[in-house]
Amino acid sequence: MKALVYQGPGAKAVEDRPKPKIQEPGDAIVKMTKTTICGTDLHILKGDVPTCKPGRILGHEGVGVVDSVGEAVTQFKPGDKVLISCISSCGKCDYCRRGMYSHCRTGGWILGNEIDGTQAEYVRTPHADTSLYPLPDGVDEEALVMLSDILPTGFECGVLNGKVAPGSTVAIVGAGPIGLAALLTAQFYSPSQIIMIDLDDNRLGLARQFGATHTINSSDGKAAEAVMALTGNRGGVDTAIEAVGIPATFELCENIVAPGGVIANVGVHGHKVDLHLERLWSQNIAITTRLVDTVSTPMLLKTVMSRKIDPKKLITHRFKLDDILAAYDTFGQAAKTHALKVIISP
Amino acid sequence: MKALVYQGPGAKAVEDRPKPKIQEPGDAIVKMTKTTICGTDLHILKGDVPTCKPGRILGHEGVGVVDSVGEAVTQFKPGDKVLISCISSCGKCDYCRRGMYSHCRTGGWILGNEIDGTQAEYVRTPHADTSLYPLPDGVDEEALVMLSDILPTGFECGVLNGKVAPGSTVAIVGAGPIGLAALLTAQFYSPSQIIMIDLDDNRLGLARQFGATHTINSSDGKAAEAVMALTGNRGGVDTAIEAVGIPATFELCENIVAPGGVIANVGVHGHKVDLHLERLWSQNIAITTRLVDTVSTPMLLKTVMSRKIDPKKLITHRFKLDDILAAYDTFGQAAKTHALKVIISP
Repeated sequence: MKALVYQGPGAKAVEDRPKPKIQEPGDAIVKMTKTTICGTDLHILKGDVPTCKPGRILGHEGVGVVDSVGEAVTQFKPGDKVLISCISSCGKCDYCRRGMYSHCRTGGWILGNEIDGTQAEYVRTPHADTSLYPLPDGVDEEALVMLSDILPTGFECGVLNGKVAPGSTVAIVGAGPIGLAALLTAQFYSPSQIIMIDLDDNRLGLARQFGATHTINSSDGKAAEAVMALTGNRGGVDTAIEAVGIPATFELCENIVAPGGVIANVGVHGHKVDLHLERLWSQNIAITTRLVDTVSTPMLLKTVMSRKIDPKKLITHRFKLDDILAAYDTFGQAAKTHALKVIISP
Repeated sequence: MKALVYQGPGAKAVEDRPKPKIQEPGDAIVKMTKTTICGTDLHILKGDVPTCKPGRILGHEGVGVVDSVGEAVTQFKPGDKVLISCISSCGKCDYCRRGMYSHCRTGGWILGNEIDGTQAEYVRTPHADTSLYPLPDGVDEEALVMLSDILPTGFECGVLNGKVAPGSTVAIVGAGPIGLAALLTAQFYSPSQIIMIDLDDNRLGLARQFGATHTINSSDGKAAEAVMALTGNRGGVDTAIEAVGIPATFELCENIVAPGGVIANVGVHGHKVDLHLERLWSQNIAITTRLVDTVSTPMLLKTVMSRKIDPKKLITHRFKLDDILAAYDTFGQAAKTHALKVIISP
């Protein structure tokens, strides 16, 4: 089968690989229908993810059809259409049983990282009963690819951790796919303001179309002042969602969170940041971090089915698996191509 | 009247001052019976608290008897015995109405900071109806001085923010008065382990007497390893309470918090700290900060009355107001004097 293989920092190629086989009784083999590329795949390609070794098939998102299952699998059978979660969850360990699937003792984010992933014709999914979700008939499969990672990440790490609430004020720093996913799902809770902050006017324009009440281009270095002007006497936002992953954007969140507010970190950070406790110790704030658990996937599926949100808005480009190198180019040069999420069809 | 007056960085003196007068209809004048010295007073004396100007009478803790009240005061009358909260709360502003008294628009921590405080024969207390608490008859007033600041601080900023729960594991970094107050109040919730970490063996010995299940002297730089050994497969503690206020102790908390855990900051920090998001972004942790709100004061009063806790354990020395300079010396050299809290009686 064809697969996109990480070959070490800066290098990737489409290779011919053997079709994966069942290795454990809880495994399923899924024939991929649609997959996509994540910002995290770009991190891997930079060499920033040491758990991902050269030779690995990338990808942790997608939908497909069950091809075969191990003898312990009871919830799925060949022919079932499924959504693949980016997080594999055994359902049995201490972390899984408290809903922290991201830290599953034998799972977590392993697909396209510690084991071969979804940017291929077939993928082996461990713990299939508790890591796959049945796809309803008649839905747009492309839209549901957004539920493998990006929607639950924006929702769980940003909106839930950030305690977005009716009438509250929210700033989202970073209008990339994850920031926009947080924007879409924040609206479940009817906040009074959603302020989107980014350097890219194109993305800020999309943010307004997607429901942002205000947008701020932070390239002048005055985003914090602009947020203070918008929030008046409150002196900042109730929820600041960090959806970039660099020190400057985290510090911006420190500067715009109001007393009693939350900084919900979503970004994948490669470096430490300065935490200004000399000012924040008395501000009654919380800072949260989270690798998505995907506990909200069934709920998010219902919101898509009932048209509360339309994640298909996040899809800008489509490619065949044969052209996945071009898909990477398009996704990696988003400022020029205006790419958000790209769909890849084997 | 006699009062302890801040005279600028490094300088203080006992001065004769006029007895305070009612200035606002909500004020009360309280004749002090017992007061104490807080670590924050030492911060002021170092010049670390710019809101506190030279000439200020220090002190934000104590019990006393109402001497007179302004015309708007309805809950107290002359002769009432009262506990003075370190936080003045108007009860009417947006922050007070959401229980964030620490950020009261016309109050907060102002006593002994922005207005004259309690280390004197009399003190003016603004917003008396919502900043004083009636003292029950027949209680030990010394014990209740601990309820002005130290007990609610350890409890609200450490135990409540830290989500201490039955069976959970707790580490408290810093066995000073505030850390020990967190230790006492953490036991309300029956955690399975309370690990106390400090450099001072005397304080660690007290911590064991006060209910710590384990103590670690961190002077060898291996406290994190010791916590990991104690917590086994969990890989750290559910709650790490930072009760010192320097970068090294905050970083220790970053190193001992388990996935899914909370770092509850209590310490007053003078400098920024390094937040290692390059590791913590995926650890599903929360970091909280808080200036005590004293919303728990009535509850804590009940726990003292019902002998669930005995805050008198924290009192090591007693002085007359005339000898308050000696009290500061004793409190300021705690490593030598083994002082925790000192009681000062006008």
